[in-house]
Amino acid sequence: MNSVRIAKERIDRALNPRSVAVVGDKKASGYMWLRSMSTFQGDVYSVQIDPNDIPGIEEMGVPNYSSLMDIPNDVDYVVIAVPRRFAGLVLNDCVSKGVAGVGMFTSGFAETGTQEGLEAQETITTMARDADLVLLGPNCMGLYNPALGVRFSRDLAAGQGGPVSFVSQSGGHAVSFSAAAQANGIGINKVVSFGNGVVLESTDYLEYFAQDDQTEFIAMYIEGVKDGRRFFELLRETTFKKPVVIWKGGQTEEGKRATSSHTGSLAESMDTWDVLIRQCGAIRVDSVTELADVLKALVTLPRSSGDGVGLIGGTGGQSVSMTDSFAKSGLRVPMFSQDSLDKLGEFFQVIGASYLNPVDVGGMNRDMTETCMDILSSDPNVDVVAMQMSPSGFSRDPAQIEGQIDALVSARETTGKPVVTMLFSPDPYGEGEALKNLDLKLQEARIPSYPTYDRAALALKRIVDYRRFHDGA
Amino acid sequence: MNSVRIAKERIDRALNPRSVAVVGDKKASGYMWLRSMSTFQGDVYSVQIDPNDIPGIEEMGVPNYSSLMDIPNDVDYVVIAVPRRFAGLVLNDCVSKGVAGVGMFTSGFAETGTQEGLEAQETITTMARDADLVLLGPNCMGLYNPALGVRFSRDLAAGQGGPVSFVSQSGGHAVSFSAAAQANGIGINKVVSFGNGVVLESTDYLEYFAQDDQTEFIAMYIEGVKDGRRFFELLRETTFKKPVVIWKGGQTEEGKRATSSHTGSLAESMDTWDVLIRQCGAIRVDSVTELADVLKALVTLPRSSGDGVGLIGGTGGQSVSMTDSFAKSGLRVPMFSQDSLDKLGEFFQVIGASYLNPVDVGGMNRDMTETCMDILSSDPNVDVVAMQMSPSGFSRDPAQIEGQIDALVSARETTGKPVVTMLFSPDPYGEGEALKNLDLKLQEARIPSYPTYDRAALALKRIVDYRRFHDGA
Repeated sequence: MNSVRIAKERIDRALNPRSVAVVGDKKASGYMWLRSMSTFQGDVYSVQIDPNDIPGIEEMGVPNYSSLMDIPNDVDYVVIAVPRRFAGLVLNDCVSKGVAGVGMFTSGFAETGTQEGLEAQETITTMARDADLVLLGPNCMGLYNPALGVRFSRDLAAGQGGPVSFVSQSGGHAVSFSAAAQANGIGINKVVSFGNGVVLESTDYLEYFAQDDQTEFIAMYIEGVKDGRRFFELLRETTFKKPVVIWKGGQTEEGKRATSSHTGSLAESMDTWDVLIRQCGAIRVDSVTELADVLKALVTLPRSSGDGVGLIGGTGGQSVSMTDSFAKSGLRVPMFSQDSLDKLGEFFQVIGASYLNPVDVGGMNRDMTETCMDILSSDPNVDVVAMQMSPSGFSRDPAQIEGQIDALVSARETTGKPVVTMLFSPDPYGEGEALKNLDLKLQEARIPSYPTYDRAALALKRIVDYRRFHDGA
Repeated sequence: MNSVRIAKERIDRALNPRSVAVVGDKKASGYMWLRSMSTFQGDVYSVQIDPNDIPGIEEMGVPNYSSLMDIPNDVDYVVIAVPRRFAGLVLNDCVSKGVAGVGMFTSGFAETGTQEGLEAQETITTMARDADLVLLGPNCMGLYNPALGVRFSRDLAAGQGGPVSFVSQSGGHAVSFSAAAQANGIGINKVVSFGNGVVLESTDYLEYFAQDDQTEFIAMYIEGVKDGRRFFELLRETTFKKPVVIWKGGQTEEGKRATSSHTGSLAESMDTWDVLIRQCGAIRVDSVTELADVLKALVTLPRSSGDGVGLIGGTGGQSVSMTDSFAKSGLRVPMFSQDSLDKLGEFFQVIGASYLNPVDVGGMNRDMTETCMDILSSDPNVDVVAMQMSPSGFSRDPAQIEGQIDALVSARETTGKPVVTMLFSPDPYGEGEALKNLDLKLQEARIPSYPTYDRAALALKRIVDYRRFHDGA
């Protein structure tokens, strides 16, 4: 069962709707869909026939109809949240109404492995394909388009778009990544959760977002693809236009068993995926956290493929740990040039500190952080600057940390080199508020931050590898 | 320069002092040492001759003397925080006074690589060795003994001891780990930061804590050892008595360069260390975070070497991710027994959920979590239970999550199997408070929690490996 080709214009209309209807939202689920759509800039309609659910919908001020066909205007995108036995009927109405896109939240299809589920899936698939309907799902969260205010969760932001589009076979990961992107200041263009992907699946969305001018970076969560050859050919072409970051779910035999009951995917071996992702010049990640880590760096850092890291901040022991993390990731932690060492040697108190790279500013040289930053960032051996910042220091003395941020911004602007920060805390839950405030300051300054040295090193290494593949550096 | 042997009784007295003196604490550093000692249960004295610093000391109510020799009582432990040029004089007084232990915060010795530093280190070393003085350092934070209230940082708790002793060549890591232990509910017996370790070093402290009845678990941060043969012989003997968790700093060539300017250690290759740590049946970790992760599990989990993990909680996509994390770590995620599958099948709504392992409770089966937990934890294929819990769920509906905690405790008590939790959040800084509150509830219930699936899996795998090595399972 190969996927069909649907014209780009039709997908455009489905993913950038001017009117939305929700079919089957209900009190028992807290009207999750209509509440999610409360930020939508166009018209929102409800279709619900259960008298228990209707009053709550009317209280929200959403016009309710007993059928899609009764809605007096055109509808571009429909969320179907009815029980499985009604899904076909509602989809039929979508076709009759000339709807462009459907997000089918309803589940209970091929992923259950039952005969009933398979048959129901076959029915809706045929119906949607015959009508050129952009059917997201079934068994998915559908579309998140923050600029238009189309959301699949009330906890997500709306109003501002961004450069990253995410294609996800999992609804849960679509929601988690959207929330992680928001927390990390990564702007989202569109998120498409496509679940069982009966009409369009990973490959089709990759093709679409490769051509979508609003999308500068593509992220994907994939459990399996229907046509591996077409997917990897397209991936190879696309990575030369824009970065593609891929998280493959079901990497192990046990994980594949889990994907088969999740989205009914047949999964190729991870070794094959790993080789092909690399050969196609895409970026591999292994979790939602890594996905956000890499994208955060991709969207903010100046283009650079140099792998020599200049490290600063932290205590003596932390200097050792930072160095181990970066060197183990495959990046280099080079000695500074003699010129830099001479300059540092002029004022540096070596007692309780050190400056070979890392620059461990110790207790006595904190005021000199900015001078050290200038010397370090200008060093010809240094391609990237990574600094440990103290969240407890930020609570105690915000001005000092703000000075460090200014020094980092100035180093980046003077040298054009990427700068990143690491916010190690021994108690990240307890220091959550300080970490959040410090990270927001860093986001304003467009400096990515990472909670551990390993995560900073891994994100940087992946980007350096990507740039080297494509720049031939 | 081999380390000397000092009688256990003398180290006992140094690490369990009944009286403490701080030499050289000052206003400029916020009286960090005397404030740290404010929780000490015995007598605290100050030695300071600078008239600028004395009034602040007297305001704190600490009796100040112009020399150690003037203190009218015995002193067991002395913190030396004077500039390097005075360190020898003060140490000489310690010897004359019959002090048992010294924590020498003063730095500027061999770690600077200067002739002056080396000579100064030689002087204090000879002096301390000749006098059988338990000299911690120089270039260190010295002793943290929470039960007695001896602290090296004001941010640390005092009043209650625990089963874990940590030996650290880095002062910064000693402070970080102590804070991480506190945040994670890991009880500390003693932390010894020994810096340059001129009199006693890693091996000596390992020997001491192996014999220390109050210490049930030993953790170590090591940059290098002076006598590798003696260290590993002792390590092999010790791991049969109690778990030893080792974090080796300077794992890479670049990292070794950093250790040499940090504590002046000559480091062996990490491959050698890795093999020897394994052959000795110790547990390797690679960061302060991993150290806390492993200890948290060691101190709370029932002794078990089974590697079959039963997974529960989370969405469909999360089920795939959890499975991948645990299977990649080397643990097993087995199918449940037919008996369990039959029981689950009786009530489980497969639409939007799944129960092959992981049990993905979906939207419809949340009330059945406890029943699922009973079936899963009793399954003969399951040795350990790992559950994803939702921090945002805890904010919305604490009673539901408390019910899950009760179900976990009951499963552990009924079956004797270890239970752990995973608290994945897409915005851990923003949800810091909810995560903290949830984790504190879990700590009360003695259930370790981890922020990611990978970290839970890695901690469990390391403990299973340790148990299998020693139990021959």
